[in-house]
Amino acid sequence: MTLTVLIAPSGFKESLSVDEVTRAIAKGVRKAIPDAKTLSAPMVDGGEGTTRALIHATGGRIIQTRVTGPVGDQVDSFWGLMGGEGSRTAVIEMAAAAGLSLVPRDRRDPTLTTSRGVGELMLQALDQGVERILIGCGDSGINDGGAGMAQALGARLLDAKGDDLPAGGGALARLAKIDLGGLDPRLTHTQIDVAVNWHNMLLGQKGVARVFGPQKGATPQQVDQLEQGLDCYAAHIRTETGIDLAPMQGAGASGGLGAGLIAFAGAKLHPRFDIMLQYLDFDRLLDQADLIITAEGSLDGQSPYGKVPCEVARRAAARGIPTIALAGTIGKGARQTYDHGIAAFTSIVKRPCSLEEAIEKGEKLLRRATEDAMRMMQVGRRLAAH
Amino acid sequence: MTLTVLIAPSGFKESLSVDEVTRAIAKGVRKAIPDAKTLSAPMVDGGEGTTRALIHATGGRIIQTRVTGPVGDQVDSFWGLMGGEGSRTAVIEMAAAAGLSLVPRDRRDPTLTTSRGVGELMLQALDQGVERILIGCGDSGINDGGAGMAQALGARLLDAKGDDLPAGGGALARLAKIDLGGLDPRLTHTQIDVAVNWHNMLLGQKGVARVFGPQKGATPQQVDQLEQGLDCYAAHIRTETGIDLAPMQGAGASGGLGAGLIAFAGAKLHPRFDIMLQYLDFDRLLDQADLIITAEGSLDGQSPYGKVPCEVARRAAARGIPTIALAGTIGKGARQTYDHGIAAFTSIVKRPCSLEEAIEKGEKLLRRATEDAMRMMQVGRRLAAH
Repeated sequence: MTLTVLIAPSGFKESLSVDEVTRAIAKGVRKAIPDAKTLSAPMVDGGEGTTRALIHATGGRIIQTRVTGPVGDQVDSFWGLMGGEGSRTAVIEMAAAAGLSLVPRDRRDPTLTTSRGVGELMLQALDQGVERILIGCGDSGINDGGAGMAQALGARLLDAKGDDLPAGGGALARLAKIDLGGLDPRLTHTQIDVAVNWHNMLLGQKGVARVFGPQKGATPQQVDQLEQGLDCYAAHIRTETGIDLAPMQGAGASGGLGAGLIAFAGAKLHPRFDIMLQYLDFDRLLDQADLIITAEGSLDGQSPYGKVPCEVARRAAARGIPTIALAGTIGKGARQTYDHGIAAFTSIVKRPCSLEEAIEKGEKLLRRATEDAMRMMQVGRRLAAH
Repeated sequence: MTLTVLIAPSGFKESLSVDEVTRAIAKGVRKAIPDAKTLSAPMVDGGEGTTRALIHATGGRIIQTRVTGPVGDQVDSFWGLMGGEGSRTAVIEMAAAAGLSLVPRDRRDPTLTTSRGVGELMLQALDQGVERILIGCGDSGINDGGAGMAQALGARLLDAKGDDLPAGGGALARLAKIDLGGLDPRLTHTQIDVAVNWHNMLLGQKGVARVFGPQKGATPQQVDQLEQGLDCYAAHIRTETGIDLAPMQGAGASGGLGAGLIAFAGAKLHPRFDIMLQYLDFDRLLDQADLIITAEGSLDGQSPYGKVPCEVARRAAARGIPTIALAGTIGKGARQTYDHGIAAFTSIVKRPCSLEEAIEKGEKLLRRATEDAMRMMQVGRRLAAH
């Protein structure tokens, strides 16, 4: 029997990108089982690296471009056109146009930073005639509720004098009227899906301004200002569209971009791994797979709560397919993952060593650990064949 | 299919005895595969721990006793009667009567220390009517060529005046005549096997006095004295018995005890793991086993050269039985073991950690690593069953 192995790992923080992890595992599988077939489903969370991973996995292409960056200057950016059956599908990671890493350290003021570039990337995708757009949230440097994105798409956000609001979440408290007349009409017949952390709310104590404002550079006063702005913004959206963003899971994703995408682009938000698996056509890949290999930097008692290995393993287990997990650290509580579809796990560490050494040699350790695990598995196949 | 697993590990130096290793692995196997049957073949090298491991593995018993220790005082000692089909078989480790750990640090003078206690243990075994005796060499504190052992068994070693030589290798240079008339007659119809390091020679540059004398406390002058003594001893043995000990592999084992056992007890020397496997009835155990698990502190490029994992794996591979190796450290060159019967290996280390931590938590790490490896193997059995 030719073994088909579906490789569905996360990246290893501070060590290996998800593409590097996927490749290392594939090499290890082939070393131990030369005739094995490998399939890839790199698991990304919507943040930095999402576009490249999806494009790489599907054989699509990256479009290099320039857009308005989070502080208003033009910045190098990119988006992707998925390959294969998804070739009418665009992938945009918001961090490529409005990410925190695009905000110079001395200009980290989320009352001023804008999501406009995200809207500009969406327009480019619409110009290409795509049928659907996947937008990944995560690693954002803005807190404007997607207002800049909405303006780029043709919405007008006006103050009491009828002037367009300037960029940034700080101006939203002056919002007096929303005019949707100029909104790009192509949005109405384009499917827009957004990958979000489902726990990100727009407003209140668990709202995006209070939870994430400080790490984007907001002072306590600015946090209050941002909260008031988003509150005013949500109230006007409710009046204009009838949509109540306050209770919506994920509406606070990426500085409230999730909210703006719902209100102005007709987008649908999804728990991030659910939608990633859908765009990766994970069910079709599962149909072909005998075995799943997943991986993450750490496997522990937290893994069952939304981490990649268990998200992948649960879906595989539902079809009766075993999942093997590889991790840099097998931590406290890792055995709980057995109840969530993980059939077996192993560490990539092969001797007493420092964390620094394990990170430095990550690729080789992962490749070898995969080979070793496959050899261990092959012992079982051999025993059963007798 | 009920899986029968034969556990044949070494001890982990500075961490776990071979019995502890065997028990930890058995627990791990049963955790992963509750209906698995486990068999044990603790691999010992003849040195300290050999008797207890063999007795434990075969369900035999330990006989506590007192004998003449290496410095002449009476010491607590023991020997074993193997259980099962080997119940007419005694096991003696020479270190229990003449080991270096029985020599107080301030009396480490191998010109004086004696192997007499080993002979006394042999007499006790003969008194029990055993049919065969396995004597383990290793960890010795003497360099008397087995002269003390021979005297205990009734041989007389006389000087030019016709007086018995006193204890210790230092007196051997005065040996003038050997009288075998009083030797215990039961020796002639008792099979005596000796487990030795096959590379230990009696005389010369690679002889026991030069190689091991210093670590037993001999000064350079004493090393010369011991070498001369053994040379004289060998010459008289050759005259009296026709046996030429000089070229014999293993004759230098345990301060030359190997030589004395050949000359005075009609013993046969064996490479240590060969004879251990024979007394453990390893072939019969292999007949019942589907899978072998072996283990050692380190698995690396040295493992194929006489280390337990490859010694075990080669024999299993010859019968088509796969061997899995567990090690604290998977070191450089470990992949070479694939050519010597090891089908798969894994480290017991599960995350970056210090050597001290790995040693301290050895039992738990080994137990868990066994469970993890068995689960990995079970994935293969499950795949093959489809």
